[in-house]
Amino acid sequence: MPITADQVKQLREMTGAGMMECKKALADTAGDFEKAVDALRKSGAAKAEKRAGRTAQEGRVDSYIHPGNRVGVLIEVNCETDFVARTDEFGDLVRNIAMQVAAAGAEFVRREEVPAERVARERDVLAGSDELKGKPAVILDKIITGKLDKFFSEVCLLEQPYIKDDKRKVSDIVQDAASKTGENIVVRRFMRFRLGQD
Amino acid sequence: MPITADQVKQLREMTGAGMMECKKALADTAGDFEKAVDALRKSGAAKAEKRAGRTAQEGRVDSYIHPGNRVGVLIEVNCETDFVARTDEFGDLVRNIAMQVAAAGAEFVRREEVPAERVARERDVLAGSDELKGKPAVILDKIITGKLDKFFSEVCLLEQPYIKDDKRKVSDIVQDAASKTGENIVVRRFMRFRLGQD
Repeated sequence: MPITADQVKQLREMTGAGMMECKKALADTAGDFEKAVDALRKSGAAKAEKRAGRTAQEGRVDSYIHPGNRVGVLIEVNCETDFVARTDEFGDLVRNIAMQVAAAGAEFVRREEVPAERVARERDVLAGSDELKGKPAVILDKIITGKLDKFFSEVCLLEQPYIKDDKRKVSDIVQDAASKTGENIVVRRFMRFRLGQD
Repeated sequence: MPITADQVKQLREMTGAGMMECKKALADTAGDFEKAVDALRKSGAAKAEKRAGRTAQEGRVDSYIHPGNRVGVLIEVNCETDFVARTDEFGDLVRNIAMQVAAAGAEFVRREEVPAERVARERDVLAGSDELKGKPAVILDKIITGKLDKFFSEVCLLEQPYIKDDKRKVSDIVQDAASKTGENIVVRRFMRFRLGQD
């Protein structure tokens, strides 16, 4: 299998090893990155495992700790340039979203991140609820879809009503900032800790 | 299967449903908590899925964001009473540990949390390294154990040298605070975000 220049470059970024060493390691392992990293480490060419998956995104990592220190949120929001990342407006956006997560307790950024089995379980509970017993199948399906939408709007940050203006969704606030800055803005990830809870 | 009062109590805490409803749900599902929660939700007795696993621990959730907003850490440290949690000393301890994670980039709190396959991979890389080739088995084992200890001291927060005094380990600093306050102090969890990295 031919090794491409891109693969060599990526392995160099991951390991810090020289170009020829990376090329050889990839050739020896038929292009398997994990094995190539291990081979470089064995030969001493790579000092330690570096994390893969670098991206060139800019943005900010920020946090919001609720007074009393029982709830806290860490968040990363990406934009395209360091210039925008440094503006007060972008900083305010990130801080407001972190506060939203602290207050409203989203579990996921977006709908696509909710595990399929979680959705299946939710659907099962809805379908079996006393409230919906005896409804005709045609109506049932519509009701369940509507209730699932409600579920997503509770657990997915971007679909939640914005705490500072509940007529709008969090995704609208992000879109506003994107329009204003002319950059693509993406809420990448967040983590919420509540004292004593999983 | 007999349902214990403890099980009923736990289900009540998880769902907010009434005692008799919880007892019945557990009896109907032969003590399966997940199924019992779903049953209570279906009958409308439990409004929404509450998170299980509550503990009575006190402490603080806090964060440290490195200037420039490219690295941030969220942390939870537990103690036994709210009284200690509110002291400046405890607050300083938590903040210092968060700063340690930001600066030294631990991946786990303690050795026991490192996945077995990660340790196995590390051991394999060490055993196959050029440096150790041809060493007798008896010596090899000792060297590998020593090198694994070094690996743990890099990736496990509590085993890292403390950034503000590298003659001491982070666990020593936690132990000092425990002695001073007379309470058990536990670093429960942390999360570190680095901009643009997984």
